[in-house]
Amino acid sequence: MHQGYSHIEGGVGAPAGFSSSGVAAGVKKSGKRDIALVAAEKPVPAAAVFTQNAMAAPPVLLSRAHVASGLIRAVVTNSGNANACTGQPGMDDARAMAARTAEQLGSSSREIIVASTGVIGVPLPIDTVLQGIDSAVAALAQGDGTGAAEAIMTTDTFLKQTAIAFDVEERRYIVGGMAKGSGMIMPDMATMLAYVTTDAPLTPAACEKALHYSADMTFNRITVDGDTSTNDMVVLMASGAGGGDSIDIDDPAFAPVQAAVQAVCEELARMIVRDGEGATKLITVTVRGAASDGDAVTAARAIANSPLFKTAIFGRDANWGRVVMALGKSGITLDPSRVDVHFAGILTCEGGTAVAFDEAEAARALSADEVEVIVDLHLSSGTGTILTCDLTYDYVRINGEYRT
Amino acid sequence: MHQGYSHIEGGVGAPAGFSSSGVAAGVKKSGKRDIALVAAEKPVPAAAVFTQNAMAAPPVLLSRAHVASGLIRAVVTNSGNANACTGQPGMDDARAMAARTAEQLGSSSREIIVASTGVIGVPLPIDTVLQGIDSAVAALAQGDGTGAAEAIMTTDTFLKQTAIAFDVEERRYIVGGMAKGSGMIMPDMATMLAYVTTDAPLTPAACEKALHYSADMTFNRITVDGDTSTNDMVVLMASGAGGGDSIDIDDPAFAPVQAAVQAVCEELARMIVRDGEGATKLITVTVRGAASDGDAVTAARAIANSPLFKTAIFGRDANWGRVVMALGKSGITLDPSRVDVHFAGILTCEGGTAVAFDEAEAARALSADEVEVIVDLHLSSGTGTILTCDLTYDYVRINGEYRT
Repeated sequence: MHQGYSHIEGGVGAPAGFSSSGVAAGVKKSGKRDIALVAAEKPVPAAAVFTQNAMAAPPVLLSRAHVASGLIRAVVTNSGNANACTGQPGMDDARAMAARTAEQLGSSSREIIVASTGVIGVPLPIDTVLQGIDSAVAALAQGDGTGAAEAIMTTDTFLKQTAIAFDVEERRYIVGGMAKGSGMIMPDMATMLAYVTTDAPLTPAACEKALHYSADMTFNRITVDGDTSTNDMVVLMASGAGGGDSIDIDDPAFAPVQAAVQAVCEELARMIVRDGEGATKLITVTVRGAASDGDAVTAARAIANSPLFKTAIFGRDANWGRVVMALGKSGITLDPSRVDVHFAGILTCEGGTAVAFDEAEAARALSADEVEVIVDLHLSSGTGTILTCDLTYDYVRINGEYRT
Repeated sequence: MHQGYSHIEGGVGAPAGFSSSGVAAGVKKSGKRDIALVAAEKPVPAAAVFTQNAMAAPPVLLSRAHVASGLIRAVVTNSGNANACTGQPGMDDARAMAARTAEQLGSSSREIIVASTGVIGVPLPIDTVLQGIDSAVAALAQGDGTGAAEAIMTTDTFLKQTAIAFDVEERRYIVGGMAKGSGMIMPDMATMLAYVTTDAPLTPAACEKALHYSADMTFNRITVDGDTSTNDMVVLMASGAGGGDSIDIDDPAFAPVQAAVQAVCEELARMIVRDGEGATKLITVTVRGAASDGDAVTAARAIANSPLFKTAIFGRDANWGRVVMALGKSGITLDPSRVDVHFAGILTCEGGTAVAFDEAEAARALSADEVEVIVDLHLSSGTGTILTCDLTYDYVRINGEYRT
């Protein structure tokens, strides 16, 4: 974390100008919180990025249209049911969630973002959800966002939120965030949701640029299993309650605010990987010396998604051959005779050829919670990093269980 | 299998004009056979396809150059060591294997194909291998190819060979084949090798066309874990010993011979998937109604490579949501509202929307050794099928074990 940032409490509730809540409406059979609301005092500049999955769920389709105006009042989320593969009734339900939230807040439907996560292919219990929305609006409170962060969880093993304060010239701003990771409710696929709030007075265009760049550098550079949910969504809302002149893309204050948004996204992204299904280790794969940054990211992703590589890390095996294999199949420009591989700090392959190394030292290095793999292509200056986790028995258990 | 084919014994040794052997030279610590030789009586028309992996091993690089002439006398293979990531010494070793085989057979080095599979990044014990080649040449025998098929195995759990006889007008020809699958020796990656022989008098161009088409329709349509070895290779040799006029691409006899080559490749490919690491089920994923055959294959491959899908099958879970997810992320043209999914014969999703189905019936259907998933996009007539296997605890165990 950048030394200019101070961590503070409160998550999405930390920045001024926002209130939040999380209530238990009964969508989850467990009785846990399942409706989350994050609301600004008025429609504020906002941006969102959505799953690229062509089978995107109704809440994604609706929210994509709603955020186009760049002004959003609130984000309402239900967990426990993804409202995916639910056809026209599912779209009607997503619209009903937006309408009820807007009605309760005295806003317009088009100023509401709707998200859902949980079981797919099951109709939303819409009456339960709408009553939950009423309760969530009644429970809205400034400050601590923990209730909302809890209400977006599915089988996440820990709550994911963070907030930082930072100074831009004379003024102190705050960026807060929360996320849910690739927890799974049978028979669902993973869904990644993340919400970031700030009291910095970003314009809609500045929100858009800050979020897209940040998401591309953080959430788009993690992978648990290479699969992409139908419901993924990342939202940024900027209340402006921190004061000062509005901050557009060209303003000097834009860069530090964008960097702070990115820092919060980075923290949330790491939490998601750390909580990957069955994960025991956080793995950082960096490719450098590539012909371009794009090539470096492509190769790092190919390595990070290789089941053979991921199981080797689980087994604490410095199996650099699988790194080389995945690199070779990635399709990027490379010269095999220049490839170096550093595995957990140990040079294992130099100029494309095996190097003798101390197996005991490697085993010790691979016992750590975090493992870094660096591939140097020695071609040019392209670099890229992907975060992932290991592939374990628990991944198979969690995802292979009967839906009963 | 086509009703016009008769299965016969002998594998690669079944067609006239070939001899083969498999000897234990000591490359494998287990003492099992580790040098395989398949030789024609003279240089014969041949073709080969090789891994697309940019980190291709020295034997692949050498053999790619040697097969370019279209005439090959023999294929020599060592198992137990992949001769990959071994630099210039590795290339010298591959050349030495070709030279020794040629010398013993009274042939030219350029008429020898060399293949290696096993541990990567470890120098080949070249003296051991060369002595093994001498023994393998001495042991060459016509007829049964079982010894050779055994000598190319690494951790394959069963031997893979087949042979069929078929008639083209008045003449009977034979196509034989053997393969090794994605067995793994720590710290190796999987390698797929397959050798096909025939006594049909194919020209070099006909070999090339028959093999490329067959490999594309069979070996290139299977996946165990989406990873691609540095050493994969498929070879076809045509002795012509079955008699008759030479068969070129335009000749009427080409189609039936090509179909027989493809049938043998298909059998071997199914054996490889069936023996995928830790596999308990053979899964057939078919996408139909796509805008093109290319789209259909792309989508089928995305589904077949999804770890979430593969673990669900292991868990006997009719988790069609994961099929829809993988379809959606594949990037092909589709209309979500037209997507049907048939899971083990049961319609689970129609027009992109969940369909109620009998869970007990689904559980029964998913208990079978083979599971078929069909996705119908209802756009056009593009179809494609990919074979794969489930992702199991044993896959993690096999690939996550310490190299000790």
